[in-house]
Parts: sequence; structure tokens; C-alpha cells
Amino acid sequence: MTALENLVQNLARLPGIGPKSASRLAYHLIKTDSAYNKQLGLNIATIQEQVFPCSICGSFTEVDPCPICDDPSRDKTQLCIVEQPQDVITLQSSGAFDGLYHVLGGAISPLDGIGPENLSFSKMLKRIAEGHFKEIIIATNPTEEGDTTALYIRHLLKDKKELSITRLASGLPIGGDLEYADRITLARSLKGRILF
Amino acid sequence: MTALENLVQNLARLPGIGPKSASRLAYHLIKTDSAYNKQLGLNIATIQEQVFPCSICGSFTEVDPCPICDDPSRDKTQLCIVEQPQDVITLQSSGAFDGLYHVLGGAISPLDGIGPENLSFSKMLKRIAEGHFKEIIIATNPTEEGDTTALYIRHLLKDKKELSITRLASGLPIGGDLEYADRITLARSLKGRILF
Repeated sequence: MTALENLVQNLARLPGIGPKSASRLAYHLIKTDSAYNKQLGLNIATIQEQVFPCSICGSFTEVDPCPICDDPSRDKTQLCIVEQPQDVITLQSSGAFDGLYHVLGGAISPLDGIGPENLSFSKMLKRIAEGHFKEIIIATNPTEEGDTTALYIRHLLKDKKELSITRLASGLPIGGDLEYADRITLARSLKGRILF
Repeated sequence: MTALENLVQNLARLPGIGPKSASRLAYHLIKTDSAYNKQLGLNIATIQEQVFPCSICGSFTEVDPCPICDDPSRDKTQLCIVEQPQDVITLQSSGAFDGLYHVLGGAISPLDGIGPENLSFSKMLKRIAEGHFKEIIIATNPTEEGDTTALYIRHLLKDKKELSITRLASGLPIGGDLEYADRITLARSLKGRILF
């Protein structure tokens, strides 16, 4: 296999990139600024050495604990539970929340073999038991799996009468992904969150 | 800027990849097989050292002359003129042509500041003068720029009465790019090429 075929084949393994887009990207890379290629290549090759999950919240970080967990000015009475590390960045970009986060690492999905034991619920319960939270905001995706996960969290916390448990307001398109919502919709869902 | 932001920003510079796709790709890269990342990173960083234009036809190659120019079994009486190196691979994949290629490096486009002097016409004329071609197949894109370029080539070759000058048959969607045509359409346009 030639270097070009190899590049095309590896690019085509990226999500959302088919064989034609992969060869278009490859030809672009052949003709583009070579310093940029070297930089992008190095970025890709080394990203996993530089980015890892925060030992407290589980979101991606380059220092441990992550800048959000480590920020003394954030509201330590609010905990926002999300499925994926990228959801933290998406919610942060809405600018409507300044509490803490907890990343589950996914949603309960028996069809994909993901049960509660595969997600960081015990760590979440430990944080809630040891912390000073007044409100738990469930920000799982508005999908079947996200809804199941939200119900499961409400069940886990049913004896914590002192906690107010809320969920992001509707306004998010049903069946979609948090990641693809626009900032205003996200900010509105945070502001209008409802008791769950 | 963090390593992750850096990666997202560099991915977003690729054609057809916006900021949201870039961050989706970045998160995929954080979680995927790390050997794959290293390989893809190396592919991207080194592609320009491995792939260069063939000194005869101008298509991308990893040996000079390219395997097509160097193949004694190919029909040396037919020369197919294309705009871009990737068009050679697209036409090759149709399996309907086994002559030689000549890559112009683009199409005449005064609005983009690309005149005949920026394209490899003199090299093309030299090849035609020194070779044993009987037919010149113009396979520029069916766009305004491609049509202009085709007319210009016909004008350049107007005194070569011994050459038959053809153009890919219609069947290609007008305004489109060669690269995105399917193989059958391409094979049909090659078979049904018309005198120009």
C-alpha cells in the first residue's frame, strides 16, 4: 500500500468521513502548508498523552484536577451530571452554569451492553455524600438512554430529601445530542430547568 | 491554548470540517486506539515528503516517473488531459482508459488569477510534439473554467491535423466535479467521448 492509500484509508476510519471525503482531505494535505501538516500530525499522534479524564469529575483535562474542579469561585452547591466529557465543554460554552460537573461516561443502554455498573454512579454518590450540594442538575441527552439514566439517578437519590433534583428544560430537540444544540437553546434549558 | 483546543482548531482548518465536526473528531481521537492515532498523525506529518508530482505527467506519485507513465503496456497513442492529480485516480478507477495522462494543475480561471501561463500547457505541447499520440482526450471538469480550458487546448492544437481531439461525453452532471462522479457515469463518458 502506498503512503497516499494508507493516509486515505486511515482518514476514512474517522467518524463521518467516507472514502471520497478521505481522498479529498488527503489531496488537500498534499498541497497545503507543510508546517500545518506537521503540527496537525503531531497533535493527533500525541493527544492521548496530553488529555486524560479528571480524577474528580471525569471530564477531559490536561491538569489534574481539571480547571473547573479546581476553581474556587465556582458554586459548590450545584452538581451537573452529564453523559460525556464533551458535554461539559458544550454546557460551559452556554455561560449559564457555574457549578460543578460530573461525567458518567455514557448513558444506560442495555442494547449496547452498558449497564449502571459501567458508568461512574458510585463515584457520583460518593461526591454527593461528601460534598455540600443543594441541587443536582441532570443533563443527560434527551434520548431514550438519557431518559433512562435520568430516572436511574433520581432513583439513586430518592432518600436525599435535602437535595433538589432538576433536569434540563425541554427546548432541546428530542432524539438529538447535547453537543449539537446551539448556545441559546442550551442556556434556556439551563435557566428553565424543572423539578424531576 | 490547550492541546485539545489546538487539535480542534487545526482539524477545523481542513476543508469541509466546521468547528463542531472538528471537536467531534477530536473527542473521537482522544478515545480511539492510540496506535491508530500515532499512525494517522505520522501519515499526515510525512505525506508531503512521500508524495510529489510525476516529472512527466504531473500526477501525484511516490516514485518518479509514476507507475502509469512507466507502464510499458499502456496505450501510448492516447493522452488524457485532466485538471488535477486526483482526476487521474478517479479516471483510473473507472477502468475504461489505459492510455497516458497529463495533469494541467488546474483550469483557466481569470477571476482566480489563473491564466494559461500558470498551467502546464507548454509541457503538454512538448509531450505531444515528442510522443506518438493519435488522440487527445480532454477530461477537464464540465464547468465554465473546464470548458474554457478545453477550448484553449483545442485552440493550441488546431494545427495538429493528424490528432483526433475528443472530450468526455456529457453524462457528467453540469457544474459538478469529476471527483464526485460515480464510476459507471465516468466509464460511460469515456466510452461515449465526442469529437471536439
